[in-house]
Amino acid sequence: MTGKVVIFGVGLIGGSFARALKRAGAAAKIVGVGRSPEAMARALELGIVDEVAASPAEAMRGADLVLIAAPVAQTGAILASILPHLEPGTVVTDAGSTKSDVVQAAREALGVRIGQFVPGHPIAGRETNGPDAAIPDLYIGKKVVLTPLPENAAADVERVAAAWRACGALIHKLSPAEHDKVFAAVSHLPHLLAYALVDDIANKPHAKQLFQYAASGFRDFTRIAGSSPEMWRDISLANREALLGELDAYLAQLTGLRAMLASSDGAALESVYANAQHARREWIEAIEAAETPADHDSAK
Amino acid sequence: MTGKVVIFGVGLIGGSFARALKRAGAAAKIVGVGRSPEAMARALELGIVDEVAASPAEAMRGADLVLIAAPVAQTGAILASILPHLEPGTVVTDAGSTKSDVVQAAREALGVRIGQFVPGHPIAGRETNGPDAAIPDLYIGKKVVLTPLPENAAADVERVAAAWRACGALIHKLSPAEHDKVFAAVSHLPHLLAYALVDDIANKPHAKQLFQYAASGFRDFTRIAGSSPEMWRDISLANREALLGELDAYLAQLTGLRAMLASSDGAALESVYANAQHARREWIEAIEAAETPADHDSAK
Repeated sequence: MTGKVVIFGVGLIGGSFARALKRAGAAAKIVGVGRSPEAMARALELGIVDEVAASPAEAMRGADLVLIAAPVAQTGAILASILPHLEPGTVVTDAGSTKSDVVQAAREALGVRIGQFVPGHPIAGRETNGPDAAIPDLYIGKKVVLTPLPENAAADVERVAAAWRACGALIHKLSPAEHDKVFAAVSHLPHLLAYALVDDIANKPHAKQLFQYAASGFRDFTRIAGSSPEMWRDISLANREALLGELDAYLAQLTGLRAMLASSDGAALESVYANAQHARREWIEAIEAAETPADHDSAK
Repeated sequence: MTGKVVIFGVGLIGGSFARALKRAGAAAKIVGVGRSPEAMARALELGIVDEVAASPAEAMRGADLVLIAAPVAQTGAILASILPHLEPGTVVTDAGSTKSDVVQAAREALGVRIGQFVPGHPIAGRETNGPDAAIPDLYIGKKVVLTPLPENAAADVERVAAAWRACGALIHKLSPAEHDKVFAAVSHLPHLLAYALVDDIANKPHAKQLFQYAASGFRDFTRIAGSSPEMWRDISLANREALLGELDAYLAQLTGLRAMLASSDGAALESVYANAQHARREWIEAIEAAETPADHDSAK
C-alpha cells in the first residue's frame, strides 16, 4: 500500500497505472498532473485520478511515489520542475521506452538527488491513447523492466516494483545500457523497418495498385507503422547508438540474403528461412508456456 | 455449374476450393489427385473429393476444369504429365503465388496447347496445411488474380473466373509481369524481411535474452516468418528478378534512414514515419470501406 501517488501524464500508460492501483486498493490517493487541461479534466471525470494538481509544488507535497508517463523527451524538464519540491521520502520513476538517455537527463536534472529516481519501462501498449484509453488490465502478466542506478536504495527500488506488481506486472531488472540494446533489437528496429516499408511503397508511382493487393501478411507486418511518428522519432533519436548498431547488423543480413538470391542459392535461402521459422516457433512456444502457469494446471 | 473438376493437391488451397464448389453446388463431380496416398485418403474420408484418381489419365478423362494447387515448382511436371490426356474441352488453371515462371513452365510443358492454361493466384492463406485445414469459407471476399494469356479464349478465362466466383472470390486481372511486380512488393519482400530479422536475432549471442523481451509488435511483424521455408524459397527464386528490384529499393530506403539517424535529423525521420503512418491509415480505411458493401448498409 502506497500513500500518495502522483502521475505526470494520465494517458494510456499513466492512466492505466492509476486504474490498476485503484482496483488493487494499492494507493491511498492518486493525483494527476499534465499539460492539457482537457485531458486532466477528463481523467478526473472518469475517476482515474482523485485530484488534479495545479502545480508541481502542490502535486509533490507529501508524495510517496511519482510516475512520469509523459513523452520521453519531456522527462528532463519534468524532473527539473519537481526538484525544488522533492521531499526526501519521495521515490520517482518513469515509463520511458529508452533508458540511457532518461538516466542522463535525470542526472542532469536531479544532480545529487539522483538516488531518488528509479528508471523503469513497462512493456505494454496499444494503438490508442488519452485518458479514455486507460484500462486497469493493461499490465496484467506484462513485464516491467526496472533499470536501477548504483545510487538507488534497495527499499526505493522495491517501492516501485511493489506498485507495478500490484498492477499485475512481472518485474525484470537490466542495466540501462542492456535495456536499450535489447529494445533496439526487438522493438525499435522493427518499428523503423515497418515505417520504411510502408513509406517505400507509398512513394512508388503505382502505390495505389500495390496497396490494393496487400493482404493480411502485410497488414500484420506493418501494424507497428501505425504508431505515433513523434513518439518513434524521439525513441529513435534517444536510442540512436544502439539502433544504428542493430540497423547495421540487419543491413549486413539483407546484403547476405541479396547475394543468395542473386546467385539463386536456394539451399542458403532455405537455411535462413528455416532457422527463422524454427526460432520463432520456439519463441512462441515459450511465450505460450509462460502464459500457462504450472500452478493453474489443476484447474484446466 | 461445372461438370467434372479435377484438383491436383487437396491441401488448404485445393481442398478449400473443392469444399467451396461443393457447398455452392457448382461442380457435378470433384476428383482429387496427389502424391501422398495418406492425404488423398483423408480428402476422400472428409468428403472433400468424390473420387481419388489413380493416374493423370484417369483424372483427365472428361474433365471440364483442372486446378493445380501443388507447390509452384511442380507445376511444369504436372502439366507435362497431363498433356497426353488433355482433351480439347478442358481448361486448366493453377494457384501459384508467382506467375511469370509458371507461364514459362506451362509454355514449355504444353507447347501449342498453351491456350488451355489460364494462370491464376488466389490471395488467401493460413498457416495450416493439409486436407484437414480445408474450409469452404477460405475464399469469401478474397481476391483471385487471373493473369490471362494472349492465347486464352475468353470463354475459358470466364470458366475459371466463374468457378472462383462460386467460391465467393472477387476476380481481378493483371498481366503475369504486373502480378509478380505487385506481389514482390507487398508479399514476397515482407516475407524475406521478416525471416531476415528473426534469423538475425536468433544468431546473436544473447538471442535468448532478446526473445525474452520481444512483445506483441515483434510477434505481428514476424508472423509471416512462421511460413513454410520450402515454399518461400521457391517463391523467392521463382520471382527473383522482381524481388531483387524491390529489395534494392528497400535497401536504398534503409540506407537513407540510416543517414537521417546518424545525423540525428529528427525532422526527416518524423517525415518518413508520418508518411508511412498516414499511408497505412488510408489503406486500412479503404479496406474497411471495401468490407462494408453499400448494399448492406440498410441491414446495419
